[in-house]
Amino acid sequence: MTKTRSPRKTPGASLAAVIDAGRLFHSRGWVPATAGNFSIRVDEKTLAVTTSGRHKGELTVDDFMRVDLQGRALDKNKRSSAETLLHCQLYRHAKDIGAVLHTHSPASTVLSRKHDSIRLEGYELLKIFEGIQTHEMAVEVPVFQNDQDIARMSRVVDAQMKTGRARHAYLIRGHGLYAWGRTVSEARHRVEALEFLFECELSESVLKATGDQS
Amino acid sequence: MTKTRSPRKTPGASLAAVIDAGRLFHSRGWVPATAGNFSIRVDEKTLAVTTSGRHKGELTVDDFMRVDLQGRALDKNKRSSAETLLHCQLYRHAKDIGAVLHTHSPASTVLSRKHDSIRLEGYELLKIFEGIQTHEMAVEVPVFQNDQDIARMSRVVDAQMKTGRARHAYLIRGHGLYAWGRTVSEARHRVEALEFLFECELSESVLKATGDQS
Amino acid sequence: MTKTRSPRKTPGASLAAVIDAGRLFHSRGWVPATAGNFSIRVDEKTLAVTTSGRHKGELTVDDFMRVDLQGRALDKNKRSSAETLLHCQLYRHAKDIGAVLHTHSPASTVLSRKHDSIRLEGYELLKIFEGIQTHEMAVEVPVFQNDQDIARMSRVVDAQMKTGRARHAYLIRGHGLYAWGRTVSEARHRVEALEFLFECELSESVLKATGDQS
Amino acid sequence: MTKTRSPRKTPGASLAAVIDAGRLFHSRGWVPATAGNFSIRVDEKTLAVTTSGRHKGELTVDDFMRVDLQGRALDKNKRSSAETLLHCQLYRHAKDIGAVLHTHSPASTVLSRKHDSIRLEGYELLKIFEGIQTHEMAVEVPVFQNDQDIARMSRVVDAQMKTGRARHAYLIRGHGLYAWGRTVSEARHRVEALEFLFECELSESVLKATGDQS
Repeated sequence: MTKTRSPRKTPGASLAAVIDAGRLFHSRGWVPATAGNFSIRVDEKTLAVTTSGRHKGELTVDDFMRVDLQGRALDKNKRSSAETLLHCQLYRHAKDIGAVLHTHSPASTVLSRKHDSIRLEGYELLKIFEGIQTHEMAVEVPVFQNDQDIARMSRVVDAQMKTGRARHAYLIRGHGLYAWGRTVSEARHRVEALEFLFECELSESVLKATGDQS
Repeated sequence: MTKTRSPRKTPGASLAAVIDAGRLFHSRGWVPATAGNFSIRVDEKTLAVTTSGRHKGELTVDDFMRVDLQGRALDKNKRSSAETLLHCQLYRHAKDIGAVLHTHSPASTVLSRKHDSIRLEGYELLKIFEGIQTHEMAVEVPVFQNDQDIARMSRVVDAQMKTGRARHAYLIRGHGLYAWGRTVSEARHRVEALEFLFECELSESVLKATGDQS
Repeated sequence: MTKTRSPRKTPGASLAAVIDAGRLFHSRGWVPATAGNFSIRVDEKTLAVTTSGRHKGELTVDDFMRVDLQGRALDKNKRSSAETLLHCQLYRHAKDIGAVLHTHSPASTVLSRKHDSIRLEGYELLKIFEGIQTHEMAVEVPVFQNDQDIARMSRVVDAQMKTGRARHAYLIRGHGLYAWGRTVSEARHRVEALEFLFECELSESVLKATGDQS
Repeated sequence: MTKTRSPRKTPGASLAAVIDAGRLFHSRGWVPATAGNFSIRVDEKTLAVTTSGRHKGELTVDDFMRVDLQGRALDKNKRSSAETLLHCQLYRHAKDIGAVLHTHSPASTVLSRKHDSIRLEGYELLKIFEGIQTHEMAVEVPVFQNDQDIARMSRVVDAQMKTGRARHAYLIRGHGLYAWGRTVSEARHRVEALEFLFECELSESVLKATGDQS
């Protein structure tokens, strides 16, 4: 397993990559209905984020709009994702974050309703995250309470991240996964890896719960 | 999660959207063999419904026919879906229903054979339904007994809906899901959301029953 | 649910339909590696069957050959499926059988290793089989022992079918499903229905076994 | 079930086959993020192996490079897969190995974390391996400990293979499956068969552990 290395893309190329990522996620059932939302950093002060109410598996370039790092709309006549502030929090938190992808799979939904945190350990795939060089290290994915007041939730997440939690990704209870990367490619690979690992953890939960000693 | 907002489509465009929805459902295994059926409201008195015996994942415009709100054929030489009267009941019940989609997934089939009603609570995805603004509200999906006398079943459903049950969708035991919306887009997104949630509920059933305390 | 009705096809059109069915099955994971085999009745005395060793999800017209009802090759330089005699037995057993499809899914494999027969009851989808008009009727799918002596296995199947067993389809232990129909379309729809129902039965086995009373 | 027989391909045609195999594996979720790696034997002394850090479901001919049987790079400016030495070990071990495919599925990951070896018995699909003529024979797939020192791991695997273990394939704990064949086709079919069987074994683990006597 090797960390993703991709050349820097233009915003247009990045949006195309986000649209492709949405199609992949849709084929997996990870962006049902209008769930999920995606964004990229356009420049120091500007983000492009998916607009509200669009199916994330069927995006076009018109389904994005620009906002600033406080989430204020820079394009008229468009409404950004209801969860824009969660994206902004991440870009302000770490300057090297270039893309944020929020997916919504059955496995992440079920696990987030059962646990306060998901500890992933012993998986080769974990090497996709910074600071993880071996399969013997662990990645902790915290689960934050869902909240319709997104501004408030973004402050909770920010406070937690300042203490060192959610270094790599986080879950919102009953609401899905937030993952990110320096590029769309890196963010998308992390979503693939985490959704894969959540599926493994769900299978292992069933085997453990049934007392399987085989 | 934002509710779907789609511009009003022409009947031709709506049929194309229904055909696409059928392809998506087929790719998920939700319309096996010739199961499932779809309809749209063409005007105040006319519906277009899938004809009988066609595979719903491989529809063409020729696989639809017009019926009136009592289910009487308005096109010759075609036979409408055996379940046409279930569609008609919905369009008469609520004037803003513009599309009805009946799918038939493994998860909905298994759950409908075990339960008299499926209570969905704590899921962000529920906000796709009218009147549901937060994840803390619940949606109840009743399970009606299957019945080869479709006219009789439609009267049972209608009586139940008049008491306030099945506000958002309903299941038929061993026979699948009926969901609807103001547009094909809204109806399809609700099918995606409900089939997703049924999959979550099925996973949770397995974990709960095994006494999983992890 | 309505039984399939399809216009009679030319052999060429039927082969194209078989090739498409193979692609669908492959997309579902029901014809792994070179598993599975398919055939159609060309005329009273001739069948076209898939040749040996080809991937059934990637067939071309060259991957078929003609055999007679005793399984003797009518085309030179080709080797028919190792299971040709199982196909021949069916065409001799019932003159209206026009296509036979053998798939190999995880669900059918697991269930066939646990049970001597799979009883399917209470499912609307069962109406796809002759003689089943309601969901309250049952379909019994017997499981026959696997046997490398295909001629011997075909005699066992034939004797069982003469007693009235395997009216609609049968399973071979650890080896998959045999289903058939008057046309490729009908046979394919029955495969879809049965593989769907096996998936339901597998889920229900897990819930029953875990003592789920919810 | 018949063993694969394919005509000898040119290296270019074999790379195209590997690229197609990667796409198939990706559609199944068996090569998440940048996991997995593939190689072919170009001639007696040369292999072509996937380069490091590329998504194996989206390969192009530029994502391969040549190495010798000791893993030394023969192309400049490219970095071969981190696991190249595992591939080299196989080509040195058996002269008729023409392709090696490493996939990374949820089923193989979960099973490899629970078991020291997976014994597959009673499956018709096992006939895809040399020396297995009937479903009554067994294939043992050993699980080797993961190790970031790939050279060391390759020596462990080699020593085990010299004692007769891992005749057909092997698993690395939490890290996936290594399978091979005389051609890309044969290797890919074995991956399909093994990933299918791992899925069956996982389902059976759940049923067995719950004491299912049905």
